[in-house]
Amino acid sequence: MSEREPEIEIDDVEIETLHDEDDRMKSSFVDAVVECVEQGDDEGARALVRPLHPADVADLFELAPQDMRRPIAKALAELLDGDVLAEMNEWVRDELIDALQPHEVAEIATQLDTDDAVAIIEELEEEEQRAVLRAMEPDDRAAIEEALSYPEESAGRLMQRDLIAVPEHWTVGDVLDYLRRNEDLTTDFWEIFVVDHFHHPVGTCKLSWVMRTPRSIAIADVMQREQTLIPADMDQEEVALRFQKYALISAAVTDPAGRLVGMITVDDVVHIIQEEAGEDILKLSGAGDGDINEPILQTVKVRLSWLVVNLGTAILAASVVGLFQGTISRLVVLAVLMPIVSGMGGNAGTQTMAVAVRALALNQLTSSNTQRMILRELKIALTNGLCLGLLIGLAVTILYGNPQLGLVICLAMLINNITAGLVGILVPVTLDTVGADPAVSSAVFVTTATDVMGFFSFLGLAALWGLHG
Amino acid sequence: MSEREPEIEIDDVEIETLHDEDDRMKSSFVDAVVECVEQGDDEGARALVRPLHPADVADLFELAPQDMRRPIAKALAELLDGDVLAEMNEWVRDELIDALQPHEVAEIATQLDTDDAVAIIEELEEEEQRAVLRAMEPDDRAAIEEALSYPEESAGRLMQRDLIAVPEHWTVGDVLDYLRRNEDLTTDFWEIFVVDHFHHPVGTCKLSWVMRTPRSIAIADVMQREQTLIPADMDQEEVALRFQKYALISAAVTDPAGRLVGMITVDDVVHIIQEEAGEDILKLSGAGDGDINEPILQTVKVRLSWLVVNLGTAILAASVVGLFQGTISRLVVLAVLMPIVSGMGGNAGTQTMAVAVRALALNQLTSSNTQRMILRELKIALTNGLCLGLLIGLAVTILYGNPQLGLVICLAMLINNITAGLVGILVPVTLDTVGADPAVSSAVFVTTATDVMGFFSFLGLAALWGLHG
Repeated sequence: MSEREPEIEIDDVEIETLHDEDDRMKSSFVDAVVECVEQGDDEGARALVRPLHPADVADLFELAPQDMRRPIAKALAELLDGDVLAEMNEWVRDELIDALQPHEVAEIATQLDTDDAVAIIEELEEEEQRAVLRAMEPDDRAAIEEALSYPEESAGRLMQRDLIAVPEHWTVGDVLDYLRRNEDLTTDFWEIFVVDHFHHPVGTCKLSWVMRTPRSIAIADVMQREQTLIPADMDQEEVALRFQKYALISAAVTDPAGRLVGMITVDDVVHIIQEEAGEDILKLSGAGDGDINEPILQTVKVRLSWLVVNLGTAILAASVVGLFQGTISRLVVLAVLMPIVSGMGGNAGTQTMAVAVRALALNQLTSSNTQRMILRELKIALTNGLCLGLLIGLAVTILYGNPQLGLVICLAMLINNITAGLVGILVPVTLDTVGADPAVSSAVFVTTATDVMGFFSFLGLAALWGLHG
Repeated sequence: MSEREPEIEIDDVEIETLHDEDDRMKSSFVDAVVECVEQGDDEGARALVRPLHPADVADLFELAPQDMRRPIAKALAELLDGDVLAEMNEWVRDELIDALQPHEVAEIATQLDTDDAVAIIEELEEEEQRAVLRAMEPDDRAAIEEALSYPEESAGRLMQRDLIAVPEHWTVGDVLDYLRRNEDLTTDFWEIFVVDHFHHPVGTCKLSWVMRTPRSIAIADVMQREQTLIPADMDQEEVALRFQKYALISAAVTDPAGRLVGMITVDDVVHIIQEEAGEDILKLSGAGDGDINEPILQTVKVRLSWLVVNLGTAILAASVVGLFQGTISRLVVLAVLMPIVSGMGGNAGTQTMAVAVRALALNQLTSSNTQRMILRELKIALTNGLCLGLLIGLAVTILYGNPQLGLVICLAMLINNITAGLVGILVPVTLDTVGADPAVSSAVFVTTATDVMGFFSFLGLAALWGLHG
């Protein structure tokens, strides 16, 4: 987050003309801005956009037609600052930044906190990156280069370097005087970090505690010693879980020597929680990042490769059907009913898998309760399999007047539901244990298993039984 | 979030013995506590648990075997305070609370902020609720009753009533003196709200701004007038989106008359963001809340009703196959290949649907860009359909030496991919427009469409072509 001075008041009326009841930006507003720009009325466009929050300006760009984004950016140039870019979808931002000169990007990056500047610069091509860094002041440049030295998606990239750290022996009065006298300190902090001689964090102090304490009290008597430290190389997903679990507003980031090198604030983490929690649904379906602003060729590449893998598994499942062509030709209705068995297994498997993937992501499924959860899923699969099997078995018996066929589909349904429940939990847990992301590849294994077992159990039982027309 | 005084320092060694490298509580620790309790060594159990953060104590209960949870609670009674309960999974919490007397629950609720107390009390049966409320102090009781008067999952239930509100004409010095002199004010605040004579919020002031400003300056000159107000009846999902979009740490909640009645802090919102973003994957798969601590019968009920609905649609799709029994009996290999066409359509449809559901949830897909996105999905579907169709068409031509069969499956694959892309985006968008939750019911419509169209296009083309063995 970066500091902004309040200048314009948005009153309720304006908010209402801007957003619909679902808090989505109205298309009438987007159209109005686009129209102004098309008609060359840049001042009109600026007048519409000027009262907006940077996050809303960013939304405006995402919602505007792709070919209008650069003309709008040109018209709004003076309003298009670092805060707007920091809030923007990365693909839309890249489009705009590609149109800028390195020195312009450098200027924008300089206005931002390190974490936001890094977010913009890390997306550039290596050559552009170097050009932008060369155009920056040495101080800013050093901070960004240091951040870039940490792995992608690590705490080191997320943190900001501007923070308030004070020595243990200061009093509350010393802290207040220090804050008031040093104009160039950040104003963007929610806690004060207390450090020892080696710049190791020894405690943290909420601002509300400092404010409620008389000036003469030592800061060491107000601070909380128990604090959650974030190693700079920790993965951002884990950082987000810690913030959530311990209800943190900000946290100190330390280097391998244990020195305080930065801080992470919750507003940066909120984006990550949202992304990480939401991306599992996209990963499970093989939709990659699922970003609607992604270049279309990129999207095709990601989705197609997933579909090709699934084509392979679909052919595998079909080959099981191939084994039973003789059986099918003796009783064609088997071909009619077999997708029911495989499909229902797929549905049941997906349920279990979704629950397991979620529980793993939230650290709720651990070695302490895995066995219990497998047993739980087995019980659920047995119950559901019995109910569904009886239901379809009865329907088939009545519809086709063939109790043997009814019994076969009932048993196949039960067998495939149990398969679904077991692979639905065992696949994600196993992938997680071997260090793979369960959300990415569970679906392939689970649906392959339920398709193969669905066809095999149903057609196999029918063959064994010697069913024929 | 509630205030806790720092008492015990957890050093790195202890953290390491407690959590594994993925930040999950180690089963060896859970086992150690369970063993102490089983052997009647309550003091040993307490010694293990005493240094833990309330969120970790809550985790311990969730990970312990169900039949050990009450014995552990008895052994740890003195450590089991409101903060622990507030962090606990609701099903596990309900189990423990069921074992308590109303006056014990009332005592725990009294220790908590209104929002956490409400979270516990709103889950109780109505009769229990009344008993607990009767056992509370009139003040606390009134606050909780007021919160319960707001709709479930609304801002009014989330907010806490303890906040710092000051009049416009005060100086920074007045504010500091007020905070220092009034011992019973909350210490849990990150911003100060400035109100007018009618208790309407007129501005907000980060604590860091107050601290960096000389005592003589008026608070009205430091505060930010532009602020995001949350109406008390706003849905929590929308509250979460606002916090995320505008990077808020806390926000004022107002009643219908525009008066300041409470505040919401980001740590309460973080849980909601996590839940709301993560639950779409569970909804899409029909797994309900997907909570692994839910009573098993509840889980069976939710999942089974979803499966029964899907059984209906599977029968519908099968009946399409039934129309073509004659065609299949003339060429049994059609039965072998048909699941490939329907299954691949299902996969492609799920990809588009996942992207659309996510984009709708994040307010990225609006009336401004729906048309553009439908066109985008159509292009993707066309490209992927062509690639997959050619691939499978070629394979079938070679494998079966039947170019006509190859052409039929190629065309069917293309048709079904286009169907998948269109329904994948149109179904969620339509559901959203009519006010239904796209995550809940999209999957049924999409897979039904891709199954029906998969079978119909493949078998229909084969029949038209007069394919036979």
